[in-house]
Amino acid sequence: MSIDSFSAHRSEETFPLTPAHTAVLVVDMLNDFCKPGGAMVLPGYEVLLGPQRTVLDAARASDAAVVHVTDCHRPGLRQDREFLKRTPHCVEGTWGAAIVDELAPHDGDLVVKKHRYSGFFNTDLDLTLKDMAVDTVVVMGVVTNICVRSTVHDAFFLGYRAVVPEDTVAATGAREQASSLYDIGTHFGLVADAAAVAEALTGGATLTNRIAA
Amino acid sequence: MSIDSFSAHRSEETFPLTPAHTAVLVVDMLNDFCKPGGAMVLPGYEVLLGPQRTVLDAARASDAAVVHVTDCHRPGLRQDREFLKRTPHCVEGTWGAAIVDELAPHDGDLVVKKHRYSGFFNTDLDLTLKDMAVDTVVVMGVVTNICVRSTVHDAFFLGYRAVVPEDTVAATGAREQASSLYDIGTHFGLVADAAAVAEALTGGATLTNRIAA
Amino acid sequence: MSIDSFSAHRSEETFPLTPAHTAVLVVDMLNDFCKPGGAMVLPGYEVLLGPQRTVLDAARASDAAVVHVTDCHRPGLRQDREFLKRTPHCVEGTWGAAIVDELAPHDGDLVVKKHRYSGFFNTDLDLTLKDMAVDTVVVMGVVTNICVRSTVHDAFFLGYRAVVPEDTVAATGAREQASSLYDIGTHFGLVADAAAVAEALTGGATLTNRIAA
Amino acid sequence: MSIDSFSAHRSEETFPLTPAHTAVLVVDMLNDFCKPGGAMVLPGYEVLLGPQRTVLDAARASDAAVVHVTDCHRPGLRQDREFLKRTPHCVEGTWGAAIVDELAPHDGDLVVKKHRYSGFFNTDLDLTLKDMAVDTVVVMGVVTNICVRSTVHDAFFLGYRAVVPEDTVAATGAREQASSLYDIGTHFGLVADAAAVAEALTGGATLTNRIAA
Repeated sequence: MSIDSFSAHRSEETFPLTPAHTAVLVVDMLNDFCKPGGAMVLPGYEVLLGPQRTVLDAARASDAAVVHVTDCHRPGLRQDREFLKRTPHCVEGTWGAAIVDELAPHDGDLVVKKHRYSGFFNTDLDLTLKDMAVDTVVVMGVVTNICVRSTVHDAFFLGYRAVVPEDTVAATGAREQASSLYDIGTHFGLVADAAAVAEALTGGATLTNRIAA
Repeated sequence: MSIDSFSAHRSEETFPLTPAHTAVLVVDMLNDFCKPGGAMVLPGYEVLLGPQRTVLDAARASDAAVVHVTDCHRPGLRQDREFLKRTPHCVEGTWGAAIVDELAPHDGDLVVKKHRYSGFFNTDLDLTLKDMAVDTVVVMGVVTNICVRSTVHDAFFLGYRAVVPEDTVAATGAREQASSLYDIGTHFGLVADAAAVAEALTGGATLTNRIAA
Repeated sequence: MSIDSFSAHRSEETFPLTPAHTAVLVVDMLNDFCKPGGAMVLPGYEVLLGPQRTVLDAARASDAAVVHVTDCHRPGLRQDREFLKRTPHCVEGTWGAAIVDELAPHDGDLVVKKHRYSGFFNTDLDLTLKDMAVDTVVVMGVVTNICVRSTVHDAFFLGYRAVVPEDTVAATGAREQASSLYDIGTHFGLVADAAAVAEALTGGATLTNRIAA
Repeated sequence: MSIDSFSAHRSEETFPLTPAHTAVLVVDMLNDFCKPGGAMVLPGYEVLLGPQRTVLDAARASDAAVVHVTDCHRPGLRQDREFLKRTPHCVEGTWGAAIVDELAPHDGDLVVKKHRYSGFFNTDLDLTLKDMAVDTVVVMGVVTNICVRSTVHDAFFLGYRAVVPEDTVAATGAREQASSLYDIGTHFGLVADAAAVAEALTGGATLTNRIAA
């Protein structure tokens, strides 16, 4: 894959993961986005589960933090900004807002509720990561081009290093998957895969950006 | 009470309350701050309950929003910033973090968890108030000079009009009560009392700042 | 163009522009991104100038606000987060950080300096727009998939309606232009063109989303 | 001075200052707040200059950062939130918004413009401090109970250690000076004096909180 001349002006193309300062963010793996009958389903979430588990197992084995970042809308607000644009979804307390069974949180995982696409916007994710001495986030989940990407934007702006394992995220279409990963790898962080992230967490391997010329 | 020459440069000393655009924020009326055996008790919270109920009854009768803003710390974070400075308190899921029985939320009340003194810092309070079309907040609770005041600061910065009914808030001491109300009335909003706020909500009366020359 | 099944769950596909509550944001039309010799040049910025002027003329004629949002990095910081990922650019006080001559600000325009891709991140853009009673932003400039898009994200999260005239923005590649406009039109706001925005500002026409099935 | 029983629940009462990770913030030492003819004058700013210079000299000698945080309001906004409450002041580009001659910035000092009382609210102060690897701030200036205190609040919330040398700040009255320093020392950071801060910066001495039982 070739990198355009503007995007090619970049650096920070490799780095290690230090488990004590790393958090794995699992974004929006919720019934409403994944399961038949959900309010807004992205077909085929099942293919993400294997790679996501590879990363989660490595995180738990190495004592990196695991944070489930879950969309959650209060019912009955007069003018929920997101519901003005999108079909209502992930209403607090409903089945749709629950994490899919396959990824049910373990003891010691954290759950951060979000209310816009980004996991950082008007949530306690930033202060919680600071209070855990985290400086690097691994972002997985759905959908790549909206909630995953928005979370990666803010992680970068706030000073975190951000890694997206490409086999752990799915977009609304093939073009959107390729385009968001390209933007992330050239401007916001590093694109890797689940196996590389697991090896970096448990074996100290260095990550390398897969978005390369 | 006389106003010093610097603080006297002010305006916006009266305004009405429109219930559809007003939220009453009940800050930190929690077991750990109020009840015997709490982690950090401010003696005498009982005197606040009557005036607070006067405001809450008026809010519910007039359809203004009621939001309980409650301190809540995740257990086991490596370096909780607030616990580095203050004794641990209001740990998520414990008795200490629960709202006092006397003010148990009604159906339709909202609860917003906060993690620092201000109800707005890294919480969804601002977006939730926007999604409810709120432009004015009435702030009650404990303690005047820390969590109430910090919440009033941010409300003002974010563009809200802020009202503090002085008989619904208590400080850590008499000087701190007087000093924080003085600063609020001269720089951040308007100091009133519970009866005046109730009358403004239900009868359309105009509020007047009690911090006056 | 067909809309995928996930993205199709949307609404708010038309709205008018009220000039008194609208701001046109001109993002990063700076020498370093546009002109030969710049630090990080996107070729072909000239084609944007005509449509951008169409919008700017309409904004000025109708008394909508014009805000130049310009990337600006303080020199000599120990670890500028953006320079860890991207080649240094738009250093404060240099030619590269200046607005291109063709779009030199008029009297009454505002300039907001930004330090990350989003015009809202750690800047006074949000409070300034509030202090101008703005609720809708028209976003133009470069590059669509990074700074324009990041600014649109935050505008939406903060409660603004966002419009992107597609002929006033350019991306790092054709796929990125199409993909970011698609995401904006389906999830964050409305994609229009310069002529439609000008007509909405000056003649009261209603805008319609161009990202349609 | 005795500490009330609520406020006494505290820790972090001593720490050293590491110059490479410390910034001295000079808040609002501006003509409009200090000089005869200013829009909103606090009489007697001259007594602050000596202690402030003691700290600034030590900061410059030890290579700690110096940041002037200056109130600055754009002229002509329709509804400047602060001007709705306070007499207009520190309008961008006027004499009133300029730093007093006695504290004119040196080469290498930074200037951050703020638009509300807190130096962190919708400014680039947080990202700039992060990009300088700063984790501790020393806050000086006027007025203790409004802009200094608001800045200290946000510094603490964002995770910084905050120090206020009491002889470098002045309040709108004696009660307000005592009360804000008490709240800062018990809940937000550490109160010291200029000599102790200078010694900590240049000689490695440990700071001790002056708000003590």
